Amino acid sequence: LLVLYRRPDGGEAALETLEHRYRDEHLPLVAQTPGLRQTRVWRVSEALGAETDLVLACAMDFDDRPALDAGLRSEPMRAAGRILREIAPDLATFLVVEDAPDLAPAT
Amino acid sequence: LLVLYRRPDGGEAALETLEHRYRDEHLPLVAQTPGLRQTRVWRVSEALGAETDLVLACAMDFDDRPALDAGLRSEPMRAAGRILREIAPDLATFLVVEDAPDLAPAT
Repeated sequence: LLVLYRRPDGGEAALETLEHRYRDEHLPLVAQTPGLRQTRVWRVSEALGAETDLVLACAMDFDDRPALDAGLRSEPMRAAGRILREIAPDLATFLVVEDAPDLAPAT
Repeated sequence: LLVLYRRPDGGEAALETLEHRYRDEHLPLVAQTPGLRQTRVWRVSEALGAETDLVLACAMDFDDRPALDAGLRSEPMRAAGRILREIAPDLATFLVVEDAPDLAPAT
């Protein structure tokens, strides 16, 4: 699951509040999600050659789609979602992404 | 570097052509980029609760911003960029993202 967060209205103070509640309230719940293998959180520094309204991104690894679906239905993830709707209403895009080994070159 | 690709005009045939040239021409050049630590390529299956025009995403890890900048200036990456402008004109968003360990919960 790749989640992209847009900048909240209200300038740097609003972004700081979002980040703090994301860290202190949302992510600890996410971390309890069954089946979650790895979580990476990124700050967006800039978009090359363009403007962007994205400020954060988070990649959460699950073994497969059924594991993701079970994780999304779990109580910790539902609670995390409730927090998110409070702290980042309409700011998040949730992309279900799948590793594409057929596209990636052998390394 | 997190790159997001929007769906090309021209339906499934156009997407297939994009994927093939991405795999056969673009990614082999990317793989030669000095300082590139890891590459993950994802297909976007869907956006939860929303529509999305995104079809592919690629995360490329570098040690730090100077390493990324050097990689972007390298000949393989410049050649990869030329291919990309040919196969996916105006379809890619290049986000410079930084790991945010201060946000991620201890695991």
